[in-house]
Amino acid sequence: MKQHEYDVIIVGAGSAGASAAIYSTRYAMKTLMLAGPMPGGLITWASDVENYPGFESINGFELGKKFVDQAIKLGSEYKIETVKAIEKNDEMSFKVMTNDGEYFAKSVILATGTNHRKLGIEREDEMRGKGLSYCATCDGFFFKDKIVAIIGGGNSAVEGANDIAAYAKHVYIIYRSELRAAPIYVENLRNLKNVSEIKGANVIELIGDVSLNRVKLDTEFNGSEYLDIDGVFIEIGYIPNNELAKSMGIDLTTGGYVKVDSGMGTNISGVFCAGDINNASNQFHQQVTSAAEGAIAAQSAFRYIRGLDWVVEEN
Amino acid sequence: MKQHEYDVIIVGAGSAGASAAIYSTRYAMKTLMLAGPMPGGLITWASDVENYPGFESINGFELGKKFVDQAIKLGSEYKIETVKAIEKNDEMSFKVMTNDGEYFAKSVILATGTNHRKLGIEREDEMRGKGLSYCATCDGFFFKDKIVAIIGGGNSAVEGANDIAAYAKHVYIIYRSELRAAPIYVENLRNLKNVSEIKGANVIELIGDVSLNRVKLDTEFNGSEYLDIDGVFIEIGYIPNNELAKSMGIDLTTGGYVKVDSGMGTNISGVFCAGDINNASNQFHQQVTSAAEGAIAAQSAFRYIRGLDWVVEEN
Repeated sequence: MKQHEYDVIIVGAGSAGASAAIYSTRYAMKTLMLAGPMPGGLITWASDVENYPGFESINGFELGKKFVDQAIKLGSEYKIETVKAIEKNDEMSFKVMTNDGEYFAKSVILATGTNHRKLGIEREDEMRGKGLSYCATCDGFFFKDKIVAIIGGGNSAVEGANDIAAYAKHVYIIYRSELRAAPIYVENLRNLKNVSEIKGANVIELIGDVSLNRVKLDTEFNGSEYLDIDGVFIEIGYIPNNELAKSMGIDLTTGGYVKVDSGMGTNISGVFCAGDINNASNQFHQQVTSAAEGAIAAQSAFRYIRGLDWVVEEN
Repeated sequence: MKQHEYDVIIVGAGSAGASAAIYSTRYAMKTLMLAGPMPGGLITWASDVENYPGFESINGFELGKKFVDQAIKLGSEYKIETVKAIEKNDEMSFKVMTNDGEYFAKSVILATGTNHRKLGIEREDEMRGKGLSYCATCDGFFFKDKIVAIIGGGNSAVEGANDIAAYAKHVYIIYRSELRAAPIYVENLRNLKNVSEIKGANVIELIGDVSLNRVKLDTEFNGSEYLDIDGVFIEIGYIPNNELAKSMGIDLTTGGYVKVDSGMGTNISGVFCAGDINNASNQFHQQVTSAAEGAIAAQSAFRYIRGLDWVVEEN
């Protein structure tokens, strides 16, 4: 094996990437995870995870770290580098270029995940960190006894509103058509006295000098309205981190997610894909589904390297 | 809601069933798990689980119990009853008959798992518990300082041999063509001094009066041979527990596993299926894949009950 040559290089160290590394090392494959300095992926930002089977309640950062530590303990390497490009030279011959060097691998698992979707209005980037955040559960606590608005009607918005309402003075939840979250969250939210729902409204302007203190709404019911707030959380979903996949010519869905088969294989042989970035698991993006996809991807990488000659006994 | 009426009845309380219950209760659905007295499913029998992401090493029984306890803590009911039959009377109207009563549910999740495959030779049932076992990792310790044979060449056989070799006097591993297990296990096994491989052989007779003390082998290399042993472990794979699915008219694969779509749906609307019993997850049977399938099945049951009107924001 040449220097820097691996059986599997995994891009990402979230639930999917770390689980792939756990399984990959258990198959005795030389494994490298390449990811940012904060392992764990998006789950890192969840204050309390209560639906990952095995843990009644665990902090998202802690759970993400457990995954990565387990992979490292089993023998996986982990380097904090940004992958710039991946070239396939031949079957079982990939070159992975990072900001800091290049590595060679027989197979690649993409587990680059998703990121927060932006509202797409003026001053959105400028106000980030100045009263504007994309993660209610991680930044909410800075707004203790303050008035905040959460924009969005899905699970993360509703969960975030529930969380923040526990210590904020007042919470507005602003959405267009309906609260499309798990009923248990919606029910909880509607029982809280310091939460107001503003339905049928869009936030169209962010107002404030040094930091955000007011938003302008375009409402269906009463034209333009202004709301004085101390902070805004934009929780309108996710976008797939698909730049690398795109640059490699990997097939994507119309929504920009990587198309995978039942073995997490992509249209490029030897390249597998696991986690929120793909369209597997009925597009149910959970830690447990990402972890399962990582395991399946590792098995597929192993079979690819071994020439598909290894058959699971249990089937 | 009538007495005994549930949103979801889950048959089984292994990794898949318990995870389905965790997710089902998080969707605020009234949930009942019906299963045997020992929760946790097949994983219960694994002495050490090191590949479930989140736990570096955990006893299988303990992990299975954690899953079930988490579901119960979140509000799921759990009854120790054997399901005899399930009738669909109408959409969202199922009648579940057990040894002890009947229950009604809007949807059903089958998570009945798999069981150990038998060798199919004479005296196999008679000798069970008298020197013959189907689980090396659970019963192995009874054979401390004894001579044992493990039959099979797959993961469970090789893992079992590794485990038992740590305290048995000698271990034979008897298989037909090759050791089809994860290389890390095969490599470990071949480094052990008290393990002999017998390749190209079938066990054709179980010999002993009160208990097993000898086996007859049919070998490719030397005709019939006899081996004196204190115990035999049959580790030749699994068979799906599909009686209930069959009786309901659910479509099965040729191997007897339940055919499911990406949402874990079966050919009967309202009946979902998760875990080792189905053909999902690229037929990779792991705790983490079973747990993921349980989560997906619960989401699908929720959508079924709600008339499919609930769309996940993140897609």
